[in-house]
Amino acid sequence: MRNKLPVAVLGATGRMGSEAVKAVEAAPDMELVAALGRNDPLETLVSAGARHVVDLTVPDSTEANVRFAVDHGMHAVVGTTGWDAGRLERLTALLAEHPETGVLIAPNFALGSVLATAFAAKAAPYFESVEVVELHHPDKVDAPSGTAARTAELMARSRAEAGTAPSPDATVKELPGARGADVDGIRVHSVRLRGLVAHQEVLLGGEGEQLTIRHDSYDRASFMPGVLLGLRQVAEHPGLTVGLDGYLNLNA
Amino acid sequence: MRNKLPVAVLGATGRMGSEAVKAVEAAPDMELVAALGRNDPLETLVSAGARHVVDLTVPDSTEANVRFAVDHGMHAVVGTTGWDAGRLERLTALLAEHPETGVLIAPNFALGSVLATAFAAKAAPYFESVEVVELHHPDKVDAPSGTAARTAELMARSRAEAGTAPSPDATVKELPGARGADVDGIRVHSVRLRGLVAHQEVLLGGEGEQLTIRHDSYDRASFMPGVLLGLRQVAEHPGLTVGLDGYLNLNA
Amino acid sequence: MRNKLPVAVLGATGRMGSEAVKAVEAAPDMELVAALGRNDPLETLVSAGARHVVDLTVPDSTEANVRFAVDHGMHAVVGTTGWDAGRLERLTALLAEHPETGVLIAPNFALGSVLATAFAAKAAPYFESVEVVELHHPDKVDAPSGTAARTAELMARSRAEAGTAPSPDATVKELPGARGADVDGIRVHSVRLRGLVAHQEVLLGGEGEQLTIRHDSYDRASFMPGVLLGLRQVAEHPGLTVGLDGYLNLNA
Amino acid sequence: MRNKLPVAVLGATGRMGSEAVKAVEAAPDMELVAALGRNDPLETLVSAGARHVVDLTVPDSTEANVRFAVDHGMHAVVGTTGWDAGRLERLTALLAEHPETGVLIAPNFALGSVLATAFAAKAAPYFESVEVVELHHPDKVDAPSGTAARTAELMARSRAEAGTAPSPDATVKELPGARGADVDGIRVHSVRLRGLVAHQEVLLGGEGEQLTIRHDSYDRASFMPGVLLGLRQVAEHPGLTVGLDGYLNLNA
Repeated sequence: MRNKLPVAVLGATGRMGSEAVKAVEAAPDMELVAALGRNDPLETLVSAGARHVVDLTVPDSTEANVRFAVDHGMHAVVGTTGWDAGRLERLTALLAEHPETGVLIAPNFALGSVLATAFAAKAAPYFESVEVVELHHPDKVDAPSGTAARTAELMARSRAEAGTAPSPDATVKELPGARGADVDGIRVHSVRLRGLVAHQEVLLGGEGEQLTIRHDSYDRASFMPGVLLGLRQVAEHPGLTVGLDGYLNLNA
Repeated sequence: MRNKLPVAVLGATGRMGSEAVKAVEAAPDMELVAALGRNDPLETLVSAGARHVVDLTVPDSTEANVRFAVDHGMHAVVGTTGWDAGRLERLTALLAEHPETGVLIAPNFALGSVLATAFAAKAAPYFESVEVVELHHPDKVDAPSGTAARTAELMARSRAEAGTAPSPDATVKELPGARGADVDGIRVHSVRLRGLVAHQEVLLGGEGEQLTIRHDSYDRASFMPGVLLGLRQVAEHPGLTVGLDGYLNLNA
Repeated sequence: MRNKLPVAVLGATGRMGSEAVKAVEAAPDMELVAALGRNDPLETLVSAGARHVVDLTVPDSTEANVRFAVDHGMHAVVGTTGWDAGRLERLTALLAEHPETGVLIAPNFALGSVLATAFAAKAAPYFESVEVVELHHPDKVDAPSGTAARTAELMARSRAEAGTAPSPDATVKELPGARGADVDGIRVHSVRLRGLVAHQEVLLGGEGEQLTIRHDSYDRASFMPGVLLGLRQVAEHPGLTVGLDGYLNLNA
Repeated sequence: MRNKLPVAVLGATGRMGSEAVKAVEAAPDMELVAALGRNDPLETLVSAGARHVVDLTVPDSTEANVRFAVDHGMHAVVGTTGWDAGRLERLTALLAEHPETGVLIAPNFALGSVLATAFAAKAAPYFESVEVVELHHPDKVDAPSGTAARTAELMARSRAEAGTAPSPDATVKELPGARGADVDGIRVHSVRLRGLVAHQEVLLGGEGEQLTIRHDSYDRASFMPGVLLGLRQVAEHPGLTVGLDGYLNLNA
């Protein structure tokens, strides 16, 4: 008897794709039926019997890849960037013609990071003060990190919806920059330190107490549990889902 | 025009009660209409026009207090311990006769602590390893703390429901106690340090990443935002609610 | 038999002074022989038989107090601010006439804070990257804190003396303030959060490793062990010592 | 003009040795003149003109290697284990015949770890309470880690020398193991978590304050700055030095 998920990896020779190949091969409930590189024909997916597809390619090819999969009734888990509003709209229309097929497009597959951001947004309205500290290696060119900015935006939004007042701040004498950057009214601080990879702390403070939600990312391998979780659940989520948090059981 | 909540505090001379008196007086949307000590008659609640009651008394009197409030159509927020299954059952029956009245019984009003526990339970199934470290002042007589044990139990339960495997542990040579206590299969470590109050860290680790949820409690004042939140929402939650997390918007 | 230290507290009705009165009374090896307020005559020190004096008064009176003590052969431990170069020079001259008398002037008596700063300065030359994050309550008016600025200055100095290169930083795209304030080439970040008191983290990073030195100050009581340590050792350190670290056994 | 240090690496094909080869090659003030594997003759050191030797071999060969180096007037930096009292005694006798030659034998070359342990021992007498938490990957077989046990021993020793009382602990009701292992009277807790490498927190608490010294080790690369520092300073430290802390400027 065999009922392992027949999975194909697109972009199998890239950094993320090669990790995915290893992760699928190691998963006891999956079978890797195809691993396609840049110039391999998509028809191989059909002949190999793939039912689930992981797309970890490049912005230029991801839309064609996913449309091919959906057209052939394959579910798709997508980690490639480049899905703007137009692409998402066209994909939604295509999925309407294939009502039993699911697609997950996720900018971030690290479960800890996705959970940290979701928890931060949920907790934000209940505390008088919130700030974000992100810490990365010193070769990073932007500050703050995209994840930290996104986290602050979501926290600001949930506070606004709940009618929470701005975080208090009596600073009148400041050395420029000491109080960090302002992202939608939330202070974000960027530390750059040799030896670090990617880390983030969300600090929430109220009278007499503090809640801290910290995520440490040490290795690209941290994305693979999220990719596998996506593959296992995509068939149960027909239509388009954006963001892995849609699959996490956060609302039970 | 006046539409402040008319609030009464029972147990107003106790440690928690006197904090509640101050908090209600300071809340712009509430009016303290009564503050009752041990021997004050409950009828004062009626003559004072209380519509919301906070019970911070003792196990011996809390049931009679809450039943009096419900009988008079007052909503109640209860922080007193001693509500066993029999009392809860009788209260539920009484509330069935007063379908518009709400009662919140909460063992813990610190928002950060309640959120930390809820997040830990939600996140637990998604990580290969989970452990808990709690840190308290050295005058504490029990180890681990009740909150840490409760957190570990909830994490163990959510992992069991999701079919998560036990946290891996290759230890073969252990100095007794090094790996902590075992609470439903989850390791819990208790640090005792002068200068601390009450702190807890939930550590969740997966391949290449770590999620940490930490709560620091510095002061009894940390309970008051939760008490006020309970008072503001209890009328919208008729019937009995146990646990402040039932009022937090965790499932949206 | 009696050989407790006969101690007098000056400024005994102030916030710090009243704590010192309690601490001296509770110390088994000390006897509180005098507790002077603003208008009490200094001659009381002589009649009470004080041999050690704690000065926790105000900048306007501290110099006269300490000179009186030294003139009468009493050792002095001083927590009052306002000791500029001129005052220190005059005191040094006076102490030269009293070669067996010791005076300790310390801007900070919290042992943990003094040690954290000393350790940070010692470790700073050995790491490629160093930054400071300080966290305080939101009613603080200056950012960064004086302690954080001082810590950064000392770290910068020890790195300069060792010829350590500046911390690397590839940031080219920065939201204003994200990378913190620049104190002598070291980045300092100021977090303001309700519920906090005074906290500081020194982060040092090198290839493959990180060292973190954190100090949490919860209560003014944290100054008293340092005051008592000063009182116990001041007689063994004749002359003027500035900074409690001069009494800590850091160089053994 | 050339005055780079002529360095030879012994054990150049091992895990640590190959890292050392890369580190020496990358150091602007060093020249790699020899890289010897298991069966290469030691005479190569002479013909290659080595003046400094790094020994990262195995316990069986390290003594002969170091004695050969000293006999030829080469300074040696040794990271190999197996140096018992007898070996150290014989080496000391040999060095007495070569008074200008230096040897550094260090069990740990991670600067952050060495500093963290040294700081913990220095700070331990000044706090009422001290405990250690170490955190490692779950494939580790011993608990607590050797480094944590060593740190606790050194803290216990410095507290004993200063006459510090034992850390207070009012625990009367304990789930077995909750309070950790007892190492010379100091509680040590071992966390095992997937995703982690090697981490340690020393917690020191006093009235109203806490000092935390944390070291994170992410990668074997963290040993190389310590090896290079040893090579640069060994000639200035004739005779035998055990422990890299002997070269760190901790007592200035």
